[in-house]
Amino acid sequence: MNQIGLVGRLVREVELKKIGEDRVVINNTLAVAKRSKKENGPQADFIPIVAWGNVAKLMQLYCEKGHMIGVTGRIQSRSYINKEEETIFTVEMVVEEVYFLQNKKAEPITG
Amino acid sequence: MNQIGLVGRLVREVELKKIGEDRVVINNTLAVAKRSKKENGPQADFIPIVAWGNVAKLMQLYCEKGHMIGVTGRIQSRSYINKEEETIFTVEMVVEEVYFLQNKKAEPITG
Amino acid sequence: MNQIGLVGRLVREVELKKIGEDRVVINNTLAVAKRSKKENGPQADFIPIVAWGNVAKLMQLYCEKGHMIGVTGRIQSRSYINKEEETIFTVEMVVEEVYFLQNKKAEPITG
Amino acid sequence: MNQIGLVGRLVREVELKKIGEDRVVINNTLAVAKRSKKENGPQADFIPIVAWGNVAKLMQLYCEKGHMIGVTGRIQSRSYINKEEETIFTVEMVVEEVYFLQNKKAEPITG
Repeated sequence: MNQIGLVGRLVREVELKKIGEDRVVINNTLAVAKRSKKENGPQADFIPIVAWGNVAKLMQLYCEKGHMIGVTGRIQSRSYINKEEETIFTVEMVVEEVYFLQNKKAEPITG
Repeated sequence: MNQIGLVGRLVREVELKKIGEDRVVINNTLAVAKRSKKENGPQADFIPIVAWGNVAKLMQLYCEKGHMIGVTGRIQSRSYINKEEETIFTVEMVVEEVYFLQNKKAEPITG
Repeated sequence: MNQIGLVGRLVREVELKKIGEDRVVINNTLAVAKRSKKENGPQADFIPIVAWGNVAKLMQLYCEKGHMIGVTGRIQSRSYINKEEETIFTVEMVVEEVYFLQNKKAEPITG
Repeated sequence: MNQIGLVGRLVREVELKKIGEDRVVINNTLAVAKRSKKENGPQADFIPIVAWGNVAKLMQLYCEKGHMIGVTGRIQSRSYINKEEETIFTVEMVVEEVYFLQNKKAEPITG
């Protein structure tokens, strides 16, 4: 059982990448305001997110850097080898549903 | 808004650490079975978890390596400096509620 | 294990009720936009919510009818006897955390 | 945004109903142990659940009355007219994923 839901702001410009012939993916990071903030401490958590296929296409169409969105999905772990040939372990959220909570770039899908 | 719920198995022995005079913490990892498994691919996600205070004490009392538990809480990001003086960025789950889904070490609290 | 997270709009004016000497409660309903809407079908789900104590006080301070909020908490069932002396079974969400996603009445707490 | 996750026990026998030519549905109720139980108070919440299609077929194959399962999905409201021609408002969980947490009837799918 694996379920996660976040509301936060996109930290970087939304960039749709092609993988092979027919797959598309977006990697970004969500700044999620902390519930209990300590003075001089961080005000947000920065959670890496990844979206595939139609979810990624919707995000590219409707989202910009700084937009507030809601996302539901699951958390996953993954290892990869970086340019320095080190094995990096990473934890990120896979977005299965996205909810557009403001309308700067276009009309929101949901409210 | 920040909410996560997982069911999985504890990967390591449960070890309660003291921090200063009166704080206790458990760091462990939850192996969460993947919903859709690919052949030759990983069968589980490995999600770092951290529990504080009474939640940590309950986990030490009732859990062992390999036990299946349910956990709800939030996801957080954190940076720290390791022994090699590198800054490491990490994402982990903060456990706010724990549910004991089997009873090897003691009677379960909930079912 | 019992976890629910919603984003929606408050259907009625927010009204804080006193229960006995020192308890306060808000009952309201959240209109949550449906993900997949059918033509001529309902566009939203209407989920009864209940908030106690400080969460209720925060809601009264910052929320009005029509405001969009995010809520996390748990779902509960309850039976009560109505004026016609019938036993009514009801399912509602208990709000444990509230997130203010717009700022009409006052400054938002989180964003 | 609409997300719910529960772990509990099936209250009734699992019964797959056919609707028209090609749709199948299961209606059941999940008994979810309360986190904080009051003496003489109810020990569980009873949450109506509904599952469609493949999720329903999986549940019929692997679940029996009394089995513990984990479910994720969304909450919905619905009105219908009963035999006494009264309009009944109901709140229930739509199951999108099911996790089998014990293995009485058959091998579990996930653990």
